[in-house]
Amino acid sequence: MRILGIDPGSRVTGYGLIEKQGTRLRHMDNGAINTCSSAPLPDRLQVIYQELVRVIVAYAPDAMAIEQIFMAKNAQSALKLGHARGAAMLAGVNAGLTVAEYSAIDVKKAVVGYGRADKSQVQQMVRMLLGLPEVAQEDASDALAVAICHAHSQSPARPIARLRHP
Amino acid sequence: MRILGIDPGSRVTGYGLIEKQGTRLRHMDNGAINTCSSAPLPDRLQVIYQELVRVIVAYAPDAMAIEQIFMAKNAQSALKLGHARGAAMLAGVNAGLTVAEYSAIDVKKAVVGYGRADKSQVQQMVRMLLGLPEVAQEDASDALAVAICHAHSQSPARPIARLRHP
Repeated sequence: MRILGIDPGSRVTGYGLIEKQGTRLRHMDNGAINTCSSAPLPDRLQVIYQELVRVIVAYAPDAMAIEQIFMAKNAQSALKLGHARGAAMLAGVNAGLTVAEYSAIDVKKAVVGYGRADKSQVQQMVRMLLGLPEVAQEDASDALAVAICHAHSQSPARPIARLRHP
Repeated sequence: MRILGIDPGSRVTGYGLIEKQGTRLRHMDNGAINTCSSAPLPDRLQVIYQELVRVIVAYAPDAMAIEQIFMAKNAQSALKLGHARGAAMLAGVNAGLTVAEYSAIDVKKAVVGYGRADKSQVQQMVRMLLGLPEVAQEDASDALAVAICHAHSQSPARPIARLRHP
């Protein structure tokens, strides 16, 4: 199963592609889509959409995973983020992908093991889990993290062996 | 010139199509796209996108006009509105339309003549300017208003004759 993770942003949208083979995860590609902040908004959304369509055509993922946003700094930044997030989701659904949303806490739990992990811990774990030579670009790393979260959610959780029985 | 006006919303997106023939405006169509609020967000965005693509294919407008949002009630509603607005804009740019944004004040000035007009005044003026038998559905009427605003912005402003010279 191939998963395309997305970290949307009005200026930079990160993406990360992984393949899940049984319990193993394989890194396929990652990158950041930069949009020119002086360009009109519709053009910037089209860049995000078209670049993601290009990635989807190149790698034929089965699913898209994207971070769920509950809070934003303010209404203005939430509005900008919503546009970019909508463009990314549309690239997925229009290509027939299932689009799954995960909270930041879900992602941190899946990657690091606890929901209050800091950014650098998540980045290092993404690097280790995927065997990357170095930490990926920040937005691409966040995109890989949500892809890993989706991969984990696809396997039934294995109960942790009880070492000691009361 | 045919203009597709859009009033985006996460639950209801209004659209309105007009044709500008010289200085005359002709109403072509209007409607409201309702999305099921219990459906997943990516599916709702796809409904907005696909319905607008259908309208664009049916009427071949030259331009899309959409209201510019500066403020929203709160970050959560801004985020939702941003998604819908992004989906609508993408339907326009992906079909090769120019997408123009106008502030609420621009729209009210263009339709009623002053920027502090209330909602019912705008609706009545839209009905009169386009010769509609009755006031259009609320979101569709707002969409027609922004289309009228775009139509007016395409003609060079005529200076108001000075009746009295100091």
